[in-house]
Amino acid sequence: MRAEFHADLMEVNRLLVTMSEAVRAALTKATTALLTADRAAAEAVIGRDEEVDDMYRQIEALVSDTIARQAPVASDLRTVITALHISADLERMGDLAEHVAKTAARRHPSPAVPAELRPVFRQMADVAGRMAEKITNLLAEPNAEVAAGLEKDDDAIDDLERDLFAVLLAEDWPYGAETAIDGALLGRFYERYADHAVNIGEHVVYLVTGETVAN
Amino acid sequence: MRAEFHADLMEVNRLLVTMSEAVRAALTKATTALLTADRAAAEAVIGRDEEVDDMYRQIEALVSDTIARQAPVASDLRTVITALHISADLERMGDLAEHVAKTAARRHPSPAVPAELRPVFRQMADVAGRMAEKITNLLAEPNAEVAAGLEKDDDAIDDLERDLFAVLLAEDWPYGAETAIDGALLGRFYERYADHAVNIGEHVVYLVTGETVAN
Repeated sequence: MRAEFHADLMEVNRLLVTMSEAVRAALTKATTALLTADRAAAEAVIGRDEEVDDMYRQIEALVSDTIARQAPVASDLRTVITALHISADLERMGDLAEHVAKTAARRHPSPAVPAELRPVFRQMADVAGRMAEKITNLLAEPNAEVAAGLEKDDDAIDDLERDLFAVLLAEDWPYGAETAIDGALLGRFYERYADHAVNIGEHVVYLVTGETVAN
Repeated sequence: MRAEFHADLMEVNRLLVTMSEAVRAALTKATTALLTADRAAAEAVIGRDEEVDDMYRQIEALVSDTIARQAPVASDLRTVITALHISADLERMGDLAEHVAKTAARRHPSPAVPAELRPVFRQMADVAGRMAEKITNLLAEPNAEVAAGLEKDDDAIDDLERDLFAVLLAEDWPYGAETAIDGALLGRFYERYADHAVNIGEHVVYLVTGETVAN
């Protein structure tokens, strides 16, 4: 019974790690699509989001099945329910990467982002990608300190989003409303991606310490 | 044991109904704040979101406790895990209503939305509010047909969002980038609110029929 439960947990964890790698790769490729008007990259991201959704459903089925068969209690139960939350956050991160790719595809062959905004998006993507990488590592080896460090990355994303808005809202913004709107929505997609990464960090802290993180 | 489980379910359901009523009231009040530049209304919504978050945490604790004490299987287990998903969607709907209120508060005493856009936001708010009301009813009495009908409401929201963007992106948009960005983000908040309502409808369909809704 115990060995079976452990095997189930390992399988759930394997799926979560695969999901976290997939959503990291998706955001990296979506950012390439966005910043280099690369339509093939955009379409690859859009085409592969279903794989992430499938993994989400697999985790959900496996967790339900494990609870039903093994009737876990206390920290075992907490672990499998936390896995559900983490998979829901990862699924949404995949959607957000897809939104970035769709914006790139919609504006193709024009670049969705004017040259002067590319550095800020490059930086947002770098920080967000680093956050996704930390999550992959955390899933392999839970560590409350690393998880809490995601908050700092998130602050960096928030600062970058403020920089972005300062440009979009400058009196002399020359690119019109459509590009301003795309810029604002894109900023929000990266920011939400980072928020979900922070949520996952909080879930891991909870797993490790049993304490919820005060917001 | 059975009676205890039933009592737990009733309590979870009572909390879900209260949450759904709260997020409906929040969006209604946030829309008033937005369309009439009513700062007190905006602040009331912002101040009360914590109550929704609290209910979310209560449901999560109660569900974990129920699983641990009662070890439900099959449809009982499905019901409590679905309740977790529904509460996560409701919690997010509360956040989105709060985002609308924050936009209203940030632009106060100026109205965040120019007069010509108020009808489309009024309509989006009406449809979204109707969706939240259906969810309250569905939680009281699950009904696959009503749940599926939420998809139609969501199509109406998507059409309204398209109308909104057509105005924001018109060549002769006279209000500048900031108002365009606020309009686009606000449109997205209502649209995401409606998406979560559709998710809840799908969870209810799954509870009633055992079939997932194809997307």
